[in-house]
Amino acid sequence: MNSYSPEKDELLKRLRRIEGQVAGISRMVSDDRYCIDVLTQVSAVTSALQSVSLKLLDAHLAGCVVAAAREGGPEADAKVKEASDAIARLVRS
Amino acid sequence: MNSYSPEKDELLKRLRRIEGQVAGISRMVSDDRYCIDVLTQVSAVTSALQSVSLKLLDAHLAGCVVAAAREGGPEADAKVKEASDAIARLVRS
Amino acid sequence: MNSYSPEKDELLKRLRRIEGQVAGISRMVSDDRYCIDVLTQVSAVTSALQSVSLKLLDAHLAGCVVAAAREGGPEADAKVKEASDAIARLVRS
Amino acid sequence: MNSYSPEKDELLKRLRRIEGQVAGISRMVSDDRYCIDVLTQVSAVTSALQSVSLKLLDAHLAGCVVAAAREGGPEADAKVKEASDAIARLVRS
Repeated sequence: MNSYSPEKDELLKRLRRIEGQVAGISRMVSDDRYCIDVLTQVSAVTSALQSVSLKLLDAHLAGCVVAAAREGGPEADAKVKEASDAIARLVRS
Repeated sequence: MNSYSPEKDELLKRLRRIEGQVAGISRMVSDDRYCIDVLTQVSAVTSALQSVSLKLLDAHLAGCVVAAAREGGPEADAKVKEASDAIARLVRS
Repeated sequence: MNSYSPEKDELLKRLRRIEGQVAGISRMVSDDRYCIDVLTQVSAVTSALQSVSLKLLDAHLAGCVVAAAREGGPEADAKVKEASDAIARLVRS
Repeated sequence: MNSYSPEKDELLKRLRRIEGQVAGISRMVSDDRYCIDVLTQVSAVTSALQSVSLKLLDAHLAGCVVAAAREGGPEADAKVKEASDAIARLVRS
């Protein structure tokens, strides 16, 4: 069990599709396809990965942060800190 | 009272500094300064605004989300949803 | 004269509007407005600044880079390097 | 021949590494690894893809844009427009 269990299948499906898209970009580069066309595909994959990040973050907030806050202990602060650090990495990546 | 009360003075100080930086960029443009130098300043202000966003988001998570979760009602879901939407806007802005 | 001369008035208008928006965010914080509402405004200003960045970069490419390439000297490489560095800062800010 | 020919091997090496990293993230999700650990890996891959984008954009500027400007025809404008559109997608993805 983990925070993203309800969306595990959906996440795996997306990740496999992203893996295939990256393989497709390798083929485009091997075939000397036009740089801007390759770039368009890379941007599409970057957006798809960001959607995966947003789903995972959502799961962390709705799962880990809320659960820790409900338990009432000091753990909630640590979970919020993890979320904040992950958001900062996401915004700056 | 609000989620960012403990950091209100710090936030206001940063925002006033950002306002001054934007005025400085206007002067650079008025004075026909070199485009790349203007761009460097715009990137610096964009980074400063993103730090403000991260601080506000942090306040929302540590304040609103945790408080709503501790109360135990359905409000926590709404607060998490607000956070997720704000993060998506932030990542894509 | 500079690369953004044709859009100087438009840029100044946008920058003054952004300055006013930042002042508005300071007032929201002073008035203890809800964190998510403040955050929405900060994201709007961040987007507006990124549009300014894209306009300046466009001017640099269409102006400085193309002009240097047409002159045929080694200056074109330096102008491309400035553009690449500015884009990297933009993508990561 | 294309704008990124000198860096083709380097690009292919990076893309294959990214493909392997995405496969690794799928395994983490399959194994129910902690959401924040998965998120950290997704951010690393997003950064790696953005480096690929910056390399391709650099090749487009130093190759296509400069070459078209040197030829002196109207093609330079079209190449600059492609670069600007690609940068806008990159900044907003």
